[in-house]
Amino acid sequence: MRSVPEPPHAPRYDVDPWRVAQGAPRPDDAARDAAIFTVANGYVGIRGGLEEAAPGAAADGERAATFLNGVFERWTPHYPEDAYGLARHGQTMLVVPAAHRIALTVDGVPLDARDPRASDVRRTLDLRTGTLERRYRWTCDDGATVDVRTTRLVSLAHRHRFALRVELTAHDRNHDVRLGVALEGRVHNTAADDDPRVGSALRGQVLTPVRHAADATPTGPHLALQVRAPGSGMELAVALAPTLRGASADDVAWTHDAAPLHARATAAARLAPGAPLTLDAPGVYADARDVGAEPPTDALAAYATDALRAAATDGVDALLADQRAALDAFWADADVEIEGDDAATQALRYGLFQMRQGAARDGRANLPAKALTGEGYEGHTFWDTEAYALPVLQHVDPTAARALLDNRVAMLDAARERARALHHRGALFAWRTIAGEEASAYFPAGSAQRHLGADVVHALAQYLEATGDDDLPWAGGAELAAEVARAYLSLGHWGRDGHFHLFTVTGPDEYTALVDDNHYTNRMAQAALRFAADLLDRLAADDPARTADLAARLALEGDEPDAWRAAADAMHLPVDAATGVTPQDAHFLDRPEWPWADVPADRHPLLLHYHPLDLYRHQVLKQADVLLAHLQRGGVGRTQRRRDEAYYLPRTTHDSSLSPFAHAIHAAWLGRPEEAAAHLRATARIDLDDLHGNTADGLHLAAMAGTWRATLEGFGGLTRDGGALAFHPRLPRDWTAIRARLRWRGARLEVRLGRDTSRYDLLDGPDLEIRHRGEAWTLRAGHPVERSSRPTLRGVAFDLDGVLTDSAEHHYQAWKALADGLGIPFDRAANEALRGVPRRASLDAILARADRPFDDDEREALAAQKNADYVRRLDAVGPDDLLPGIRDLLDALAAAGVRLAVASSSRNAPHLLERLAIADRFDAVVDPAALRFGKPDPEIFEAAAEALDLPVEDVVGVEDAAAGVAAIRGAGMPAVGVGDANALADADVVVPDTTHLTLDVLADAVRRRDARGDA
Amino acid sequence: MRSVPEPPHAPRYDVDPWRVAQGAPRPDDAARDAAIFTVANGYVGIRGGLEEAAPGAAADGERAATFLNGVFERWTPHYPEDAYGLARHGQTMLVVPAAHRIALTVDGVPLDARDPRASDVRRTLDLRTGTLERRYRWTCDDGATVDVRTTRLVSLAHRHRFALRVELTAHDRNHDVRLGVALEGRVHNTAADDDPRVGSALRGQVLTPVRHAADATPTGPHLALQVRAPGSGMELAVALAPTLRGASADDVAWTHDAAPLHARATAAARLAPGAPLTLDAPGVYADARDVGAEPPTDALAAYATDALRAAATDGVDALLADQRAALDAFWADADVEIEGDDAATQALRYGLFQMRQGAARDGRANLPAKALTGEGYEGHTFWDTEAYALPVLQHVDPTAARALLDNRVAMLDAARERARALHHRGALFAWRTIAGEEASAYFPAGSAQRHLGADVVHALAQYLEATGDDDLPWAGGAELAAEVARAYLSLGHWGRDGHFHLFTVTGPDEYTALVDDNHYTNRMAQAALRFAADLLDRLAADDPARTADLAARLALEGDEPDAWRAAADAMHLPVDAATGVTPQDAHFLDRPEWPWADVPADRHPLLLHYHPLDLYRHQVLKQADVLLAHLQRGGVGRTQRRRDEAYYLPRTTHDSSLSPFAHAIHAAWLGRPEEAAAHLRATARIDLDDLHGNTADGLHLAAMAGTWRATLEGFGGLTRDGGALAFHPRLPRDWTAIRARLRWRGARLEVRLGRDTSRYDLLDGPDLEIRHRGEAWTLRAGHPVERSSRPTLRGVAFDLDGVLTDSAEHHYQAWKALADGLGIPFDRAANEALRGVPRRASLDAILARADRPFDDDEREALAAQKNADYVRRLDAVGPDDLLPGIRDLLDALAAAGVRLAVASSSRNAPHLLERLAIADRFDAVVDPAALRFGKPDPEIFEAAAEALDLPVEDVVGVEDAAAGVAAIRGAGMPAVGVGDANALADADVVVPDTTHLTLDVLADAVRRRDARGDA
Repeated sequence: MRSVPEPPHAPRYDVDPWRVAQGAPRPDDAARDAAIFTVANGYVGIRGGLEEAAPGAAADGERAATFLNGVFERWTPHYPEDAYGLARHGQTMLVVPAAHRIALTVDGVPLDARDPRASDVRRTLDLRTGTLERRYRWTCDDGATVDVRTTRLVSLAHRHRFALRVELTAHDRNHDVRLGVALEGRVHNTAADDDPRVGSALRGQVLTPVRHAADATPTGPHLALQVRAPGSGMELAVALAPTLRGASADDVAWTHDAAPLHARATAAARLAPGAPLTLDAPGVYADARDVGAEPPTDALAAYATDALRAAATDGVDALLADQRAALDAFWADADVEIEGDDAATQALRYGLFQMRQGAARDGRANLPAKALTGEGYEGHTFWDTEAYALPVLQHVDPTAARALLDNRVAMLDAARERARALHHRGALFAWRTIAGEEASAYFPAGSAQRHLGADVVHALAQYLEATGDDDLPWAGGAELAAEVARAYLSLGHWGRDGHFHLFTVTGPDEYTALVDDNHYTNRMAQAALRFAADLLDRLAADDPARTADLAARLALEGDEPDAWRAAADAMHLPVDAATGVTPQDAHFLDRPEWPWADVPADRHPLLLHYHPLDLYRHQVLKQADVLLAHLQRGGVGRTQRRRDEAYYLPRTTHDSSLSPFAHAIHAAWLGRPEEAAAHLRATARIDLDDLHGNTADGLHLAAMAGTWRATLEGFGGLTRDGGALAFHPRLPRDWTAIRARLRWRGARLEVRLGRDTSRYDLLDGPDLEIRHRGEAWTLRAGHPVERSSRPTLRGVAFDLDGVLTDSAEHHYQAWKALADGLGIPFDRAANEALRGVPRRASLDAILARADRPFDDDEREALAAQKNADYVRRLDAVGPDDLLPGIRDLLDALAAAGVRLAVASSSRNAPHLLERLAIADRFDAVVDPAALRFGKPDPEIFEAAAEALDLPVEDVVGVEDAAAGVAAIRGAGMPAVGVGDANALADADVVVPDTTHLTLDVLADAVRRRDARGDA
Repeated sequence: MRSVPEPPHAPRYDVDPWRVAQGAPRPDDAARDAAIFTVANGYVGIRGGLEEAAPGAAADGERAATFLNGVFERWTPHYPEDAYGLARHGQTMLVVPAAHRIALTVDGVPLDARDPRASDVRRTLDLRTGTLERRYRWTCDDGATVDVRTTRLVSLAHRHRFALRVELTAHDRNHDVRLGVALEGRVHNTAADDDPRVGSALRGQVLTPVRHAADATPTGPHLALQVRAPGSGMELAVALAPTLRGASADDVAWTHDAAPLHARATAAARLAPGAPLTLDAPGVYADARDVGAEPPTDALAAYATDALRAAATDGVDALLADQRAALDAFWADADVEIEGDDAATQALRYGLFQMRQGAARDGRANLPAKALTGEGYEGHTFWDTEAYALPVLQHVDPTAARALLDNRVAMLDAARERARALHHRGALFAWRTIAGEEASAYFPAGSAQRHLGADVVHALAQYLEATGDDDLPWAGGAELAAEVARAYLSLGHWGRDGHFHLFTVTGPDEYTALVDDNHYTNRMAQAALRFAADLLDRLAADDPARTADLAARLALEGDEPDAWRAAADAMHLPVDAATGVTPQDAHFLDRPEWPWADVPADRHPLLLHYHPLDLYRHQVLKQADVLLAHLQRGGVGRTQRRRDEAYYLPRTTHDSSLSPFAHAIHAAWLGRPEEAAAHLRATARIDLDDLHGNTADGLHLAAMAGTWRATLEGFGGLTRDGGALAFHPRLPRDWTAIRARLRWRGARLEVRLGRDTSRYDLLDGPDLEIRHRGEAWTLRAGHPVERSSRPTLRGVAFDLDGVLTDSAEHHYQAWKALADGLGIPFDRAANEALRGVPRRASLDAILARADRPFDDDEREALAAQKNADYVRRLDAVGPDDLLPGIRDLLDALAAAGVRLAVASSSRNAPHLLERLAIADRFDAVVDPAALRFGKPDPEIFEAAAEALDLPVEDVVGVEDAAAGVAAIRGAGMPAVGVGDANALADADVVVPDTTHLTLDVLADAVRRRDARGDA
């Protein structure tokens, strides 16, 4: 039961590749702006509320809030009907005391950017400086003006630190000004009676006062608050050290005071033209986990005091410089640009920036679904981290990736405890949590999502491969993998069909629940089981003694890894025989279709208008699990991917913001980059354009990560192939190139994946295996490589009959003989109607004219008889029966190094090729017995391209029948038709007969297919 | 998520066929006693707390409470994670102001039966007088004694009335006594934080004061309170009119006073030896529904005042007399007795009495799951009414049955509204409710139980058949049936298999949830769809114009009833091919078995120790849906019932109190009355012996109704066969007879179903079709009929080969010829090993000795060849090949009118019987092709008995093979073995050869089988 899209609001942010900026804010957008302009460092997160807004900010619509990652209140959920094992740990990320408020008066008048006297208002979040800056000009009643500039940052270099800077510049005359800062502990989480998905169960003042202080120092007062969350027992402190520069000390008068939950300081000063004043207020947040004392009160106070003193000594200028340096380092690894599309570039960079800001880097906390940008989902961590963020972070910020995996390791004991409570073995990670305990109060869409353990293991496996990190397995990684594997063994069972099954689970698609053998879950579990067993083997090979210790710690029985492998090998992953589709779960295809026609447009998203029972009962998806599973490496070829995408896309509502990115990737991989771009547009600027109308509750971090994945994995074709990185650019027309930085096993790479050419540049690090459109080479630092991105003629898949030779006459003679024997009239006209019709269907057509019925056995026998006769007649075929021009064409193709395949439905093809003496010319002959469906299903041509190990767009299909041409096009291949131009109009090129088949014609087909765009 | 058994407490009530009584109560049992001693009339219910206990009774452990049926408070449930369509209407039956408290002092000392000065304490609920009486003797400090007797009743004759009587008798000297009565509005429902299944969401004082009064009248004060439930807006009034008799008016001094939520009156008087004092306090309860005014305040006050005045005028003696008369009338229709088992008699009568007390008789309220005896399940009505109570009430209290069905009709609009809200057609009844709106807060075990609509329709259909009521169909019954049918059409779908399916439902077994094609749901829906269509046809035939009006009101489209019938005919009700078992749901048999071995005894009931996901995932049941479905008339024969019972019983935990009764019925029907009695013992005295440890929360009305059903339907074999009542007594050894009164279509019947003989007596009413053990006759008033209950020899099912003839030689010759042809050695010794082995298995055994492999096709051909050879050899068989004695036996059986069948696995049996010239002697020859499994599966003999239309225990099976004898015994039939006594030791009688087969031997087998007891 996740995100709830609403009608989109109009976007208001400038399109700029390195900034998110706006002019005068609209009051209605205050909460959305606050989320968008969040500054954070993975520990402290401050929503981008206005400094001058009153504390207790709910009233002003901003829902201003500061969060500390991992700091939460604990409460007990109440269930109208209870059951054993339901989540007992309500956890809500706390709104902590605010420190970013500034009370600013000029000549006694309070300043406010929302006042009509404020002009030239501008707010800018700079993705390179890491600051949130606001400027405006204030016009006094007498026309005198004062320029105001505020700068806010949360330090990416110093975990505890943040800072405010206020600069005032007078132009016309002297002004009396007062600059006040405050620590405000009277804060509260947003009540959310209306939509429990948004807010929290916490009401009113949760934090209780522990300590307050306001002390004078030579440079200005030091303010401090310390508070406690009674339910969780967590304690935290905030402290602030304001100073004022630009006026002589004599001209500044500081006042300060403190009370429980409140501390403030105000400087009164004279602002003169030409003598700007600057208020610098460095500050720190810390919590009891930083001091490890219990009770932490005194130690935490001392820790905060020391930290503040150090921050004050270093000053804000140094903090600004460190911030820039930290981001320079980040972008050196992570930068990405879509040449030709600034809006997309901005979205990608903003997403990466927010991931950099949101992910905890200390292993003690995680990356909440909405990071530190809002109260949505109560600050909980879901599978979003592993399934969305980590596939990105491992390539752009491996340090953060490691820290997030460390945090899952830290949750392992809670997961073991949960497994024990449910009488399972191993570890069951909480579907939603902050500290590790299950906090999902609706188990059919919560605890039942048993894919999470495998998601975590998958992310671990991918991370290890991407980084070569050989420490994490010993630092809990292997234990985690083993405990997850155990949990799957404990959950699953061996069925009467000999397969291993996982029953009564819920996949990512929450529009079905409590299903058997969810495909995604089973696929991921299969991989997790294998990985766990393989990892233990690898560790044992590397360090037998240490591995023995590990096994002892795990009380690992000798045959456990074998049992994991056996279960993985037998995992139930069926394909439906009738449709060729991968069922989302064992019984999905038996469900009725969703009654789309009866559902008015205003009943979307469906979850807000239909009872779960009705959603669960139908073939309707929030997001497509099978397609998500197919993003994993290995497993399915193009045919299965194509069938499943065609089946699930029209049944998918995208009511989850996590949905569209996967469709973008599949559409790109299937040769439809324009459609892929449309999918991407549905998600890329989800927050900058507030596409789901709920950005105010916090940003959609997973959708942002998905945007990066769609860009690099989808349009860039980024995959892994063993230790190598592989690319296959398929860009939409509007994009010139994707330029991106990537980390891979210690190397730093810049790729420019262009529409026409691609460039690979190893900036530093060890040599690297690279593949581009199937071509592989070793990339070395300082030696960039450039390759064409466009398809070229590299393969041809020939139909046989009517293209290489004409066996129609032999078929006719064989059918004729059969019909004569049965006394059924048959002539060449009747034969013509059988062209392209499979054997059994042809027979049925002939027997339809007989004067007696034939049973199935008899028909089988007659079909066999006709085939035997036909094969006998083929003995008369020889090299001279090659159609005109074919021999020359084959010679030319061979000379050009083009690979060749035969894609014929006839099981006699190998025999016929032998008779024609061209069998040795072909690299592959597709076996039609291995296919599920005949032409016009594209499967046979996809099989040909796969057999040639070439991208489909590089392999021309040659056909003489319309069904064949349709199959070629369905396979995404360039199509050449031989025969009637009208009948074969769907082909990219049509030639009247085989004498016109030349290398140029085939190459032209490749170009035309390419120019056509989406397949 | 229903009842939660705990370890049983020791019972403390006297076993007495007409009373529930106890001596001095134990304080720990106070709450249980309060439930047990409830007095009620379907509207007012007063738990049996002690009169002298302090008001605000939670503290004293009684959980004293008075309820008014249908009077509740409404509140809004909060879900930790919300979803569309979840129940929005919390409803809790209110504890209403108490009126049964008495403050009694003797010489200034307050009396209390729990005080050591009280002796000879006795409390008695009399099932014939309908009163709760308490007596004790109070010993003053000087040794003088006073006898105290209190009587309480809630009038079964006058809906609003109740009464208290206190009698004081002095023996030794004069005493100053004070007798106080009170109306106490400071009452509250029991908070239940620990177990949400027990109590309610209401906390503290819910009722608000509306009016209070204490007025003097010539006979004593009149007290009145009126209160309001703010959430539901319901208002109710209680009034009391105490008088004191036995003392002159001058000696009595009344005082009284009233305040919001409280009114009281006290009489001070002198008690002299020989001049007993009697306090009579008649009272009334009423609520705003009685006056129909809005706002009701004044009208209700006037109504209550008038009602009290009338009650006071009539007096308590009249009320007592009316009470006795009402119960005499009830027992005249409903009495039941187990001769030989007073404990069972008491349990049955107590259960009927509580149903009589609990069921609303006004159509405005229902029979809550715990009636008016406690706060368990918040006073909600479930399917218990239709599936448990109505099958009893239609036979013993048709007026109550009609009223309960009227109440479902009254809920129809709410059910339609619920269907609309969920975008379904028709009507969806609330799984749990008081007023009609869905109040089930856990939908997987609530709203998903879509069998409820069909349960209601089934109860309606049964009621109409049992009573001949031709008004109810017009009074909403037909609308209800049509709307329920529509809802099933709207819920279900036509699958790709051509069947009609109901997916994502939950059956009564809440240990699985959200399953496809739950067998019980589909069976019930099938019947409901057919009934709705048939009823409309019947109405149209009876009154076309009125039916047209009805159809117009329903906006019925012409083809709707056809669509209902089509869906019913195609309803998916599969039987598993491999096991022959009816799957509880489409995928039940694919689930893993419950790991019984890993589950310690202290983890029962499972729902308190396992997460729903783990229960749902396994083949483990709370109660057996399939067996419940098999209680419905028609549908399954003995074979399917036997297989399903054998499969499900070991997988059923009986964690629901609703479970055991069905097992008792099936065990009785399958000829195992002793085992059935054991099942019944697990439920019959569920409350009197507090078997589930939660009687304190309220009585288990459904389990009580189930006890009656198990007794009459199970042991009595009560079923319906068209318009006739059918009986088939199968009593356990401890029971002499079941004597019961029954109503049937206007007739009143007394049956005495004895172990040896049964007697049927039509007391009054029209002639009646009766069947007893398959024998039918017409019963007329004043002409009782008596029949034997014991099995008699009425049929014989013969094996063929080795019993009627010996074809072993022909088989040998045929096998020999085959083996010779293949060059495989084969002799008579080898042939002996094939005795009783089916054809294909015999062939495989022979071919195992061949020197080359045979494929399946070849084996098929060889088997066919052998059979053809064998059949050819049978042409040599003639009448002389009958085994010795058989012809005489067949003659004797024919003369005795015994029916005969052949139960042979051979498909050649008819041919062989023809050759033997005895084909015309047999009434039936079982076709082995129609059977699922061969001997020793009992199916073939069950089929023989069914073909003869005789009870299995009246049909002797005759066999020469051990597997055959096992089959006969499995079928519950008397078994005669022909051959070696050791090999056939399981037979009831063994004879060495067919010459010994006589009528006496067969009759002896019947007697021995009968004496054996459980089959």
